[in-house]
Amino acid sequence: MAQTQDTVEFPPVPSALPPTMRAAVLFGPGNLRVVDRDVPRPGPDEVLVRVATCGACGTDLKILDGHFPQIPPYGQFTPGHEWTGTVVDVGATVDEFAVGDHVCIEAHRGCGRCDNCVVGRYTACLNYNNRAKGHRATGMTADGGFAEYAVHHVSALYRMPEGLTPEDAVLITTAGTSLYGLDHLGGYIAGDSVVIYGPGAVGIMAAQVCRALGAGTVILVGTRQSRLDRARELGIEHVINSRETDPIEAIKAILGPEGADLTIDASGAQPVPQLCVEGTKRGGSILFLAFYHDKVEFDLSAAIRKDITLHTSRGEGGNNVRRAVSLAAQGALHCKELVTHRFSLEEIGEAFHVIRDRIGDPMKVVITP
Amino acid sequence: MAQTQDTVEFPPVPSALPPTMRAAVLFGPGNLRVVDRDVPRPGPDEVLVRVATCGACGTDLKILDGHFPQIPPYGQFTPGHEWTGTVVDVGATVDEFAVGDHVCIEAHRGCGRCDNCVVGRYTACLNYNNRAKGHRATGMTADGGFAEYAVHHVSALYRMPEGLTPEDAVLITTAGTSLYGLDHLGGYIAGDSVVIYGPGAVGIMAAQVCRALGAGTVILVGTRQSRLDRARELGIEHVINSRETDPIEAIKAILGPEGADLTIDASGAQPVPQLCVEGTKRGGSILFLAFYHDKVEFDLSAAIRKDITLHTSRGEGGNNVRRAVSLAAQGALHCKELVTHRFSLEEIGEAFHVIRDRIGDPMKVVITP
Amino acid sequence: MAQTQDTVEFPPVPSALPPTMRAAVLFGPGNLRVVDRDVPRPGPDEVLVRVATCGACGTDLKILDGHFPQIPPYGQFTPGHEWTGTVVDVGATVDEFAVGDHVCIEAHRGCGRCDNCVVGRYTACLNYNNRAKGHRATGMTADGGFAEYAVHHVSALYRMPEGLTPEDAVLITTAGTSLYGLDHLGGYIAGDSVVIYGPGAVGIMAAQVCRALGAGTVILVGTRQSRLDRARELGIEHVINSRETDPIEAIKAILGPEGADLTIDASGAQPVPQLCVEGTKRGGSILFLAFYHDKVEFDLSAAIRKDITLHTSRGEGGNNVRRAVSLAAQGALHCKELVTHRFSLEEIGEAFHVIRDRIGDPMKVVITP
Amino acid sequence: MAQTQDTVEFPPVPSALPPTMRAAVLFGPGNLRVVDRDVPRPGPDEVLVRVATCGACGTDLKILDGHFPQIPPYGQFTPGHEWTGTVVDVGATVDEFAVGDHVCIEAHRGCGRCDNCVVGRYTACLNYNNRAKGHRATGMTADGGFAEYAVHHVSALYRMPEGLTPEDAVLITTAGTSLYGLDHLGGYIAGDSVVIYGPGAVGIMAAQVCRALGAGTVILVGTRQSRLDRARELGIEHVINSRETDPIEAIKAILGPEGADLTIDASGAQPVPQLCVEGTKRGGSILFLAFYHDKVEFDLSAAIRKDITLHTSRGEGGNNVRRAVSLAAQGALHCKELVTHRFSLEEIGEAFHVIRDRIGDPMKVVITP
Repeated sequence: MAQTQDTVEFPPVPSALPPTMRAAVLFGPGNLRVVDRDVPRPGPDEVLVRVATCGACGTDLKILDGHFPQIPPYGQFTPGHEWTGTVVDVGATVDEFAVGDHVCIEAHRGCGRCDNCVVGRYTACLNYNNRAKGHRATGMTADGGFAEYAVHHVSALYRMPEGLTPEDAVLITTAGTSLYGLDHLGGYIAGDSVVIYGPGAVGIMAAQVCRALGAGTVILVGTRQSRLDRARELGIEHVINSRETDPIEAIKAILGPEGADLTIDASGAQPVPQLCVEGTKRGGSILFLAFYHDKVEFDLSAAIRKDITLHTSRGEGGNNVRRAVSLAAQGALHCKELVTHRFSLEEIGEAFHVIRDRIGDPMKVVITP
Repeated sequence: MAQTQDTVEFPPVPSALPPTMRAAVLFGPGNLRVVDRDVPRPGPDEVLVRVATCGACGTDLKILDGHFPQIPPYGQFTPGHEWTGTVVDVGATVDEFAVGDHVCIEAHRGCGRCDNCVVGRYTACLNYNNRAKGHRATGMTADGGFAEYAVHHVSALYRMPEGLTPEDAVLITTAGTSLYGLDHLGGYIAGDSVVIYGPGAVGIMAAQVCRALGAGTVILVGTRQSRLDRARELGIEHVINSRETDPIEAIKAILGPEGADLTIDASGAQPVPQLCVEGTKRGGSILFLAFYHDKVEFDLSAAIRKDITLHTSRGEGGNNVRRAVSLAAQGALHCKELVTHRFSLEEIGEAFHVIRDRIGDPMKVVITP
Repeated sequence: MAQTQDTVEFPPVPSALPPTMRAAVLFGPGNLRVVDRDVPRPGPDEVLVRVATCGACGTDLKILDGHFPQIPPYGQFTPGHEWTGTVVDVGATVDEFAVGDHVCIEAHRGCGRCDNCVVGRYTACLNYNNRAKGHRATGMTADGGFAEYAVHHVSALYRMPEGLTPEDAVLITTAGTSLYGLDHLGGYIAGDSVVIYGPGAVGIMAAQVCRALGAGTVILVGTRQSRLDRARELGIEHVINSRETDPIEAIKAILGPEGADLTIDASGAQPVPQLCVEGTKRGGSILFLAFYHDKVEFDLSAAIRKDITLHTSRGEGGNNVRRAVSLAAQGALHCKELVTHRFSLEEIGEAFHVIRDRIGDPMKVVITP
Repeated sequence: MAQTQDTVEFPPVPSALPPTMRAAVLFGPGNLRVVDRDVPRPGPDEVLVRVATCGACGTDLKILDGHFPQIPPYGQFTPGHEWTGTVVDVGATVDEFAVGDHVCIEAHRGCGRCDNCVVGRYTACLNYNNRAKGHRATGMTADGGFAEYAVHHVSALYRMPEGLTPEDAVLITTAGTSLYGLDHLGGYIAGDSVVIYGPGAVGIMAAQVCRALGAGTVILVGTRQSRLDRARELGIEHVINSRETDPIEAIKAILGPEGADLTIDASGAQPVPQLCVEGTKRGGSILFLAFYHDKVEFDLSAAIRKDITLHTSRGEGGNNVRRAVSLAAQGALHCKELVTHRFSLEEIGEAFHVIRDRIGDPMKVVITP
């Protein structure tokens, strides 16, 4: 397993834009190849970015395997939705960014005209994947960041403050996902108790975000001790290994018999929704940030009897990446510390091998084109 | 089957309160007997009501059968939580009501001191069933309305306007349940499309309430045609018999392929949560107003992918019965029209026989003590 | 004074679009002239409408007089922001509308990329009047409806149901303004008491909208008896002439000493904010829908002591015109009944003379190009 | 000027409760005398506290001077609403607290039965000052903390974590006031820019609270440099002396021309509402935490045009003191650092002399009975 670089810097602005670039293109299920492609040109409301680094995750595996709906045709599509880099060109109407700016992104741009976009819920755009109407989700329905260059709509870019690295930027998008979910339930969790299932990148960023919003007690539950230990190093005081302890008992030992004000599932494990209901306080909330492989079964009546609201969240919308950037700039989030594996673009196949087979317990794997 | 009265009036104030009354008392599972009991005295913040009529429902069956947690000891407890009547005495501090007032109720009074009550979420009171701390749920943790007289906390009583009957009042509490659920998701559904599963009293009142709030299209789905016909008579334009038609297809034929802005389950049928997810729009809401007999299984990932929030609701809190009274007074709700069966208190056993065995397709059964 | 037509129909689709049209163009302060202009062509996400009718209001007077900031250059600009008509052409990406559709509008289209637009608050677009970035407010920063044809962004158009007229459509936009304001305070006013100052078109539509959402008691306060009488004819039960009665006393006589749950100012009269504070309940809300000619003075401390929130609202955003269309289709709103004066486009000067000098007590004046 | 103690500890539980205590009693306007009174007994839902310390503030001056409505009769009333201490006895139903617990308080207990209390808005209780119905506001409508002992309703007490002092506890209540105001506007201010007018105890606690919730930029504006310096020492980076600089220009120099997402007035100075409107972003919020001596005049139309909501807040309700305790326990708030003057109960007259005449620039003055 390669780990090609120790640190990644935001790339400089090239003196002249090259005509072509290296890009990973999906040619069929499981067939991702790095080839030469034209460097894209930004549209009037777009920005062209020299990609510094791009995170790879489980959703990318689904995309690679052909299990993700609505991707562009094989042979034409570059995945990668957690990227960051340096602005190298801006479209005609763009004055929000200047060449040389370091940026991070959110994935989604809505059509701006459906009922959901009109009220700002563009991650639930009713014209999802309708390019003509303006929808695009980088790395999902539009070319993404497993390439040297990528274009992105100006509405989904955020300027990075000094002192943060491209790898911080990758995890800031992940933090934005958590914040978007928390936004959905009001975002006011100061003093509240929060239990989070799943000590992966999403769960650990969620835990840090809750701390940054002033949550009283944050408990992280998982099955891999190495990840729980990592979380503890990053300041998450309470961790529970659910292979060793009954998590509900452990939660109640810490929080009292009522359980948590808020429970977040960032694991996607089938039994977790039931645990969420059991460990959440009457009147509390559950936030689902992960997807399940199959239908789930749980005691919905108990949730009703306990007056629990079940929130779901997709993507990172509504200025929440901007909020995440601010929290990171305040020093409230450890981001790049979650990067465990780094690969060059040419090594992208190896990167996905590491993710798929969990080689070396990967937390966050990044590709540096 | 008896149907002892045609109409019920609010009873007059007796010239003198009798020392004893007839009351249905639960002596054990399935053992509900009408006996003599002392007429209760109102505490300082309570009101004594001569009960006009009291609805009976599925929750009462659970209570009778011993399947409802936390009821008072056998031999001491009178159920009945959908009652209405005439104020005949008021406690020392009560000036909100006067003797002679006609009132309807909500069931719950919280402790007023737990974290949930402090923010007004008393149907999720953390001191549920703690009488010493002030919690009481009439007919569930405290004596209810299957009796000639009942006391109730002043906070959970609502004055009935002229022209409405005790049977209207019973269903106003049911409407309050729907409104409380809708309140939870914001209550602003004007112009929205709503699908409701379960054409019982809860579902039909929910449908009427949605109409009264200006919902654009209201669709009621059920399996008993007689109930759907009744709903149509009461002004619910769109009804779907899910035994005859695929409900999702039928919903999409009316609303278009995106489905409903809001789906309400008032049925408690195990397959309905899955239908709710399938028939609800991206960014929409599901409201669960019924309980399921067992754990439910459904595609939670689809709800997450569609950015759907799952709201639950228990009881009728937060001034929502006051809102229901107002809507009824405006003529926006058909209430007493849902009463299909009327029994005297002495006939209460027969009443529950009718409910349990669905004799004569009972919609709302009332007891008139 | 002319009143050139009795009724207005949606115009038919012309067999061929003419190259030029008649349009009122502002050539300088007070200098509005009807001239020939090219018929505009819809952009890819725009619709071309044959205007049926366009309302004229006080904001138009400000625009005509040069007191409205950010209008386009003199000689190039057609005002008119309350228009409606028939779709005659659609842009390349538009499948939401078809030629022949009858539509009403909302005025604002945001840039879709600033922090406010991203969360759906485009009437507060931070790029207001920046055409390059996509903002346009018809009749304010872009050509409007005092012309035979107008283009509009697809996101700000709503299909009219059968049975409603162009004049209904004009007032539906006005109802959308009220609904947007109510949306801001949650929109859940069923059973609540509402006091509205200002029995003009905005106030009367606000009153009707409150009724349609189930408000318990709606009181309209004004100084012109003819308007109050008109409101009463349209179903607003409680009207108060504040020239004849102390409005606060009159409100409390109806609602009790606590006052209203919600007070709306649709008058813009300088003393009204103080009356709003005095007549609103502890914990209640005030919604400001009108603009004041000058700074206002009122007892803000009383609002603080009473825990009153002061909401403001500009324009009609967030799907609220869609909601208004639905309420009108349900028969819950009287719209065209508010039209008191009708003029042809060539008579537009006379129309504004009527508005400015309140000739014939104009409620809503419409121009039919 | 006395400053009788350096530090205050939570008092120990006395081996036996004395029959009488020293208490400051208001005998008439300006006539506050320390006399002997019976030690009160806790009711069934009350707690008896040995007061450790009690803050004194401007509201107390109004109470002393007879300018505060609804205080109890002269000769019977002990003011003081910012107190803290050790539990020495609990009422019959109280198991939430034990003798020996250290507690801080919120001032208000609502009636629990009016429309506002039912939804958790008890600081706007419609039965304010109605003792019979259960309302009490310690030190305002009921005996407060300028005494050796005080009783308080269990719903308005919060257990202090280890390591915090009674003086921390006094300021935690102040932080609760800010949090309650922020709660009103959603409480989700992570990454937002906040401007606060008034660098007194309320303003500085508000600034700290905003930081603790993750606000991006916090700016404090005031006229006394010593207070601004103190704020800077406590970690508030941006301070503006509005005697030396135009505050709007200074704010825009820091935040850009749009101004702040949120502006808080904790000053109560007459010109500040106008400054709030000018310095707040389109779509932003203003929160009023202070009272004005007179009516205020400002450009309300500008607030409407900018779509700004004006929030008001009274007291500290809705679990917000619990949240404040948690933030203090997390080390996110500097509390006792704001105490500038300490007096014994017998010196209370001198304490108010210091406050009234601003002797020694008092920030927070505490009395230790």
